[in-house]
Amino acid sequence: MIERILAASIGQHVGATVRLCGWVHRIRELGAVSFVVLRDRSGVAQLVYSGRTDLGNESVILVTGTVAENDKAPGGYEVQVSQTTLLAPAAADLPIPVNQDPESIGIDALLDNRIISLRMPKIRSIFAVQSTIVDAFAEYLRANDFTEIKSSKLIGTGTEGGTGLFTVDYFGDRVYLAQSPQFYKQAMVASGMERVFEIGAAYRAEKHDTPRHLNEYVSLDVEMGFITDHTDLMDLEAGLLTHIFDRVRERHADALAEHGATVPTAEQVAAIPRIDHDDAKEIISRRAGKKAFEINPEGERELCAWAQEESGIAAAFVTGFPRKKRPFYTFPDDQKTRSFDLLFRGLEITTGGQRINEYAMLIDTLPKFGLTEEGLGDYCTIFKYGCPPHGGFAIGLERLTQQILGLSNVKEASLFPRDRKRVRP
Amino acid sequence: MIERILAASIGQHVGATVRLCGWVHRIRELGAVSFVVLRDRSGVAQLVYSGRTDLGNESVILVTGTVAENDKAPGGYEVQVSQTTLLAPAAADLPIPVNQDPESIGIDALLDNRIISLRMPKIRSIFAVQSTIVDAFAEYLRANDFTEIKSSKLIGTGTEGGTGLFTVDYFGDRVYLAQSPQFYKQAMVASGMERVFEIGAAYRAEKHDTPRHLNEYVSLDVEMGFITDHTDLMDLEAGLLTHIFDRVRERHADALAEHGATVPTAEQVAAIPRIDHDDAKEIISRRAGKKAFEINPEGERELCAWAQEESGIAAAFVTGFPRKKRPFYTFPDDQKTRSFDLLFRGLEITTGGQRINEYAMLIDTLPKFGLTEEGLGDYCTIFKYGCPPHGGFAIGLERLTQQILGLSNVKEASLFPRDRKRVRP
Repeated sequence: MIERILAASIGQHVGATVRLCGWVHRIRELGAVSFVVLRDRSGVAQLVYSGRTDLGNESVILVTGTVAENDKAPGGYEVQVSQTTLLAPAAADLPIPVNQDPESIGIDALLDNRIISLRMPKIRSIFAVQSTIVDAFAEYLRANDFTEIKSSKLIGTGTEGGTGLFTVDYFGDRVYLAQSPQFYKQAMVASGMERVFEIGAAYRAEKHDTPRHLNEYVSLDVEMGFITDHTDLMDLEAGLLTHIFDRVRERHADALAEHGATVPTAEQVAAIPRIDHDDAKEIISRRAGKKAFEINPEGERELCAWAQEESGIAAAFVTGFPRKKRPFYTFPDDQKTRSFDLLFRGLEITTGGQRINEYAMLIDTLPKFGLTEEGLGDYCTIFKYGCPPHGGFAIGLERLTQQILGLSNVKEASLFPRDRKRVRP
Repeated sequence: MIERILAASIGQHVGATVRLCGWVHRIRELGAVSFVVLRDRSGVAQLVYSGRTDLGNESVILVTGTVAENDKAPGGYEVQVSQTTLLAPAAADLPIPVNQDPESIGIDALLDNRIISLRMPKIRSIFAVQSTIVDAFAEYLRANDFTEIKSSKLIGTGTEGGTGLFTVDYFGDRVYLAQSPQFYKQAMVASGMERVFEIGAAYRAEKHDTPRHLNEYVSLDVEMGFITDHTDLMDLEAGLLTHIFDRVRERHADALAEHGATVPTAEQVAAIPRIDHDDAKEIISRRAGKKAFEINPEGERELCAWAQEESGIAAAFVTGFPRKKRPFYTFPDDQKTRSFDLLFRGLEITTGGQRINEYAMLIDTLPKFGLTEEGLGDYCTIFKYGCPPHGGFAIGLERLTQQILGLSNVKEASLFPRDRKRVRP
């Protein structure tokens, strides 16, 4: 039997008899000949049939044929088919067309018919890029001596406070879906692993339904021991993002072109400004022509526009957040904190900072946030028995994917998004 | 400032002044001198102090000193300390000792005090190996053109049937925690991605509390299109496991030695027998001296012992399971199925098989399992619109880790295990 080749590689087999498998993407019947575009995981190839075919869109076929050059074929080659086997038929009542531009279909129809819309090459390419982001994230951190961890998503208490948690019936007990692996990644730094990362689901039971929120998302979490302060973390994140951008550029030229997107260079990432929270508000106020009391979504866009003009990249680290705007575990710096957000192309994609590592300081801090040691379960044990200075950050995978490709809604960057109204498919 | 070096590397710095950071693992005071074993992410190093120290176990310190050779020191080198900074003190009332063999402490005490027991080097090494398993799994599949996916763990309906599901309150609606990404990985094969893998949490609300079960575990899932039958999947898994074993052997000689473990060679994995379910029962019956009506945990151990004797590896693929023992989506083969389990060192670590990919066959099958198309939500849509022959398998990450290292309880291979009674820490 002839070995299967992929659609993208037919140009390497001119004159040869080849075998292809895939989906019928498009059919054009011209009487004497029919052109069928075959789609597989690598891309598409034009098949040529004499006369009509009885194939339907989205049917899965196996074909044998001879590769020929044809300037008019997409890619410059086509396959003259000698034999076709129908591997699986497709019903004719496709709820949405696969071979059209997804832009021509509304986002609700795309998400309601997710099983079908994921077949659209432009949509599938989003998740090829996402797979590379995950790969590059892990690759960079492993090369820097980080260990990958997998922590539980079922927790007895919420470290970020009790609001915004989904409840789970756990054999009659009430437990919660974790909002972040914060507790666990800090525990693993203190265990002596020192440098850890986790790629895992995070849950937010927040009712707002916006283009920037998901109720379930993938959090790319990093935590690192023996840091001096949060500047070490921003340096780490800059190196990490550079590596991710490089890998996306290397592997996904087609997807970037299809989405009209580019990724920043190492020089651009190195130029990301680091702005104090107060200064950021001032810049936003000045540009918007009205006083900014906090950095809202509009302010995030304004600050990135400023950074683009000033530094050549639409991104900014915002530092020095006030204590009351950050979780209790954030390392204080007078009334401010050793913490940061990273805004990228107008959207916050990271929150991070140094954490309180001294038990006495932590115990002192809890009442200021209305918390008690007992209420935090096992959390304080991490610090009672020797925990080095440390900190970390988390990148929202879907938001990073969205901003790299310039998608208008974060839900487009989730295979099966969960929002206020959507728990299917 | 002198750059920090790691404990494992001091032999490369003899005569030099170095800086080390880490935890006080052990203190031995001999009057004129004190020996302190410092632990960091790389291992341990002996520090020498003149006179007594006022350090306590598990305190986090930063020391400066000079490296000297000493045959009597662990590793052959030690650091004569000139300066010590206490980075974080540790309370003296450690609930369990860190510097003793975990075997001397019961599993319940180890799990109840997980924040502390994870500091024990032998326990931490389990998760260094686990991190490599995850890495090697993804690496092998990416090299074979698989795309990593991240699917939702919040589902409206259970594809495996409604039992054993944890319920979540989703804005007042009742949804479930996914038992597996089965639906989603099949959808992604059918999307045209063809070859996908997922590393994600899976949930089983099963009440039994045994050394082989977790209520939350990490599932290493694989799904592949355009297969001939389930033998392609066993071939893929053999290649995948070989790669994982190779990486563990390369990177974790110390951990393997500490646990008294070895990993199979490529030749051994290639020799794993493939036994029909009926033949397996016969072998078990013969060896146990009593009729085996099914392959229970004792039978799994017996079959692996047989494989060790016959083929030189304590592992076996069991194929040809009867239809009624497999989920509805399993591709039938008369009264049997194109499915398999992989037993490794006496424990099932994988279930897999070819899936039904034809819509008509699926619709025909549902009533035999008491199911309806409507009851399965969007599942049947995958097959209605053209889905190639495909199949896949899932490896339990904790079970694989357990069996590689020879741990007696799967909970030892979970950082923060969840069982019938345990949702903390």
